[in-house]
Amino acid sequence: MTDAGLDAAEALASLSEHSEPGPGVTRLPFTPEHRAALDRLTALMESAGLTVSLDAAGTLVGRAEGPPGAPTLLMGSHQDSVREGGAFDGIMGVVLPLLALARLRLEGTALPLSVEVLAFADEEGVRFPTALLGSRALAGTVDPAVLEMADAEGTTLGDALRRFGLDPAAIPGLRRDPATIAGFVETHIEQGPVLEAAEAPLGVVTAICGIERHAVTVTGETGHAGTLPMEGRRDALVAAARIVSEVDRLARAEPPMRGTVGALSVAPGVVNAVPREVRLTAELRSPEDTQRLRAGKALHAACARIATEHGLTVDAARTYAQPAQPCDPTLSDRLAAAVTAVTGSEPPRLPSGATHDASAMADLCPMTMLFVRCRGGISHDPAEYAAPDDMGAAVEALAKLIADWPA
Amino acid sequence: MTDAGLDAAEALASLSEHSEPGPGVTRLPFTPEHRAALDRLTALMESAGLTVSLDAAGTLVGRAEGPPGAPTLLMGSHQDSVREGGAFDGIMGVVLPLLALARLRLEGTALPLSVEVLAFADEEGVRFPTALLGSRALAGTVDPAVLEMADAEGTTLGDALRRFGLDPAAIPGLRRDPATIAGFVETHIEQGPVLEAAEAPLGVVTAICGIERHAVTVTGETGHAGTLPMEGRRDALVAAARIVSEVDRLARAEPPMRGTVGALSVAPGVVNAVPREVRLTAELRSPEDTQRLRAGKALHAACARIATEHGLTVDAARTYAQPAQPCDPTLSDRLAAAVTAVTGSEPPRLPSGATHDASAMADLCPMTMLFVRCRGGISHDPAEYAAPDDMGAAVEALAKLIADWPA
Repeated sequence: MTDAGLDAAEALASLSEHSEPGPGVTRLPFTPEHRAALDRLTALMESAGLTVSLDAAGTLVGRAEGPPGAPTLLMGSHQDSVREGGAFDGIMGVVLPLLALARLRLEGTALPLSVEVLAFADEEGVRFPTALLGSRALAGTVDPAVLEMADAEGTTLGDALRRFGLDPAAIPGLRRDPATIAGFVETHIEQGPVLEAAEAPLGVVTAICGIERHAVTVTGETGHAGTLPMEGRRDALVAAARIVSEVDRLARAEPPMRGTVGALSVAPGVVNAVPREVRLTAELRSPEDTQRLRAGKALHAACARIATEHGLTVDAARTYAQPAQPCDPTLSDRLAAAVTAVTGSEPPRLPSGATHDASAMADLCPMTMLFVRCRGGISHDPAEYAAPDDMGAAVEALAKLIADWPA
Repeated sequence: MTDAGLDAAEALASLSEHSEPGPGVTRLPFTPEHRAALDRLTALMESAGLTVSLDAAGTLVGRAEGPPGAPTLLMGSHQDSVREGGAFDGIMGVVLPLLALARLRLEGTALPLSVEVLAFADEEGVRFPTALLGSRALAGTVDPAVLEMADAEGTTLGDALRRFGLDPAAIPGLRRDPATIAGFVETHIEQGPVLEAAEAPLGVVTAICGIERHAVTVTGETGHAGTLPMEGRRDALVAAARIVSEVDRLARAEPPMRGTVGALSVAPGVVNAVPREVRLTAELRSPEDTQRLRAGKALHAACARIATEHGLTVDAARTYAQPAQPCDPTLSDRLAAAVTAVTGSEPPRLPSGATHDASAMADLCPMTMLFVRCRGGISHDPAEYAAPDDMGAAVEALAKLIADWPA
C-alpha cells in the first residue's frame, strides 16, 4: 500500500501549479486556474472510484455509493486560495478524504454509508465581495442578491458562473434534504500554533468562533505639536492607544477569546501635528457567544469612559456579527475516537478562530472539523506547510471514521 | 491718527488675495503670488517712508535710516504660507513693524537707530525641502547644496531664484556684520492657546523650543486574528500603543515640554490580521535642551523595556535634532517693558513651540519674539485670526520699543 501522506503531498504539489503567476498559490473561483484544478481533482476522484459531477454553484462532487437507503456523509473543503496563499488551505481538505476513500477501496472495505467529497468553489471571498457560495447552496441559504455582486473587473458572480458553464438559476435546487445527510466533516490546516505547541498532529474542533467587528472613530482636536501645551490637548491617538490596550486586555481576561485591533489610521498623520482623528477596527472572536457579547459591551463602555477622560468623542459601532457554530458533539467524539485509534493519543480539542465552509454547512446538518498541524501557525502565505506524516494520519483517521460508522 | 489695528487688518486682507485659488491663503515662494505680495508690501513700505530693495535671497527689505553710525534693528517675518493656510502667519510680522514705523513717521518721532523691516521669502518649507533661506542668508548659514533641491515640478531652488530675477551667487554676500546689527524682533501669531487662556493680547517669547524627532519601528509577528490565541501573540500595535502613551506621559511629567506621536501606520493593516509592524514618529520639544535630551533617552529606554515585555523588536532612532534658541534677555525685557507701557500689564512670557525665522537669526544677533494672541490657537488654517485691537497694541508696542531704544 502506498503512503497516504506522500500521496497527499504529491497531489497538493501538483494542484498548486494551477495558480496565477507569482509567489505561492493564487487560485480564484471561476477562472482558468479553477478549471484546471477541477480537471486534476476529477482525475484523482475517478481513480479513487468516485462518480464525479459539477453542481450549479461550481462545487465538484465525488460520490462513493453506500448501501441503498443509507445516508450520505459529506466531506470536503474549498479549492480556492487567497492571493499569494499556500498549497494547503482548503484544497488539502478535498484531497485527504478523497485519499481516505481510495484507501478503503484498495483495502476492499465496504462503505457503511454513502460518502461525497466536495470541492467548493469559493470560500475565501477574494474575487467577489461574498463567499461560501457552494456550502450555502447545499444548505439552501444563498441570498440571490450575491449573484449581482461584481469582481474588480465588473463581472458579476452570475456572469462568472454562466461563463464557467453553470446555470445560476439552478442554485436553489441544490439544497440537500437534511434527512438524507449524516453530517459534514471538514479537514483543514489549523492556521494557528496550538497543535504544534501541543506536539499533536491532529485536533478536533469544538466550535467555530463567533465574530463581531467594531468600527471605532476617535475625534479630538488637532494643533501644532510645538505650540499646543500638553494640558488641554485632545489627542485622538493618545485616546486610541488606550482603546487598543483595552481590546487586548479584554480578550486576555477571558480565554479562549481573541481580541484584535488590526487596522488603525491617523489624521492628519504628520510628525508635527496633534492627531485629530483615529479610525480603528476592533474584532472579537469567541466560541461562546455570551463571552463575546459581554466583551463587546465592555469595549463600548470603555470607549465611553475614555472619551470622557480625554474630553473627546469616541464613536464605536458594531459593524458585523456572526454567531458561533458549535460542532456536533457526537460527530466530534466519533472523529476523536478515530484519531485516537490512529495516533495512539486523544487529540486536543480546540475552537476554530477562522470561519470555514463548515460554518455554512451547520445550517444543513451536524458538522465537525479535523485540524491538521501546520508549521509555525502560518497560513495564507506561500510558506504554509503541513507535513506528509500528519496528512497521512488524517487520511487514516478519516478512513476509520467512515469504516467504523455505526449501522 | 488712523487706527493701526484696522490698518493692519485691511493690509492683511488685501495681501491675502495674493494666493493660489482655493480655501485660505496658499502663497509659495518665488511664484506670481509672491511677486504680487511683494508689490503690495513695497507700496506699503514706501508709504511708510522706507527705502525698499529686494535681496538675492528674495527678502524684501524696507529700511528707515537712523542717525549716522547707529546700529540697525531688524524686524520682520516671512511672506509665505502653508497650503490653504491663513492670512496672518508670517505676513502679519511684516505688516505690524511697517505700521509701527509709519506711526513714528506720522508722529514726527526721530529714530534713535536704523530699522529694517524684512519680508523673508520662505520660512514654511512647503515648496522646497528646505526653509529659512532669507534669514539664513543674513546670518551667513545657507548651505549652498539647498540651491540644488527641487520642487514637485523638478525646478531647483537656484532656478526658481533666477527666474524670479535673483542671483543665487550673490547670497553669500548677504551676510550682515553682527557689529552693525542691534537685534532682531519677530512678531508672529502665537499659533497656540496660551495668550487666549491668559486673556492677554501680547506675549514675549522666552526661547524657541529645541526639537527632536524619533522614527520608531515596532516589529512583531502577524497571524490570523481568529486562529492565533492571545498568549504568545507579538502584536506590534499593542506594543506601539504603550509607546504612544509613554510619549504623552513623559511630556506631561515635565512642563513645558511637548511630546507628540503625530504619524502612525500599521502593516498589514487589515481587520482580521494581527499587526506585524507599526511605524510611528515621536517628537519632543522643549525650551530647555537638557529636559528634551533627558526625555529622548527615557523614550529609548521605554522602547527597549516594551520590546522585552512584548517579545518583539522596537527600533528607535533619533532622526532630527535642533537645539533650543533662547531669546536675548535684554531685548526681551525691553520688548516686555514696551508692551507693559501700552497694555498696562506685564505680558506673559512663554516659549515658542514652533520654529521661526528668529531661530536662524539667532546665529547673527540677539533676537526675541512678540506673540500676538490668535483665536482658538488656530494657525495653518483658513480660520486663523488675530483681532485688530491686538494687532493695534502690537504696533504701538513695537513703535515704543524703537522710540525708547537707549542711545
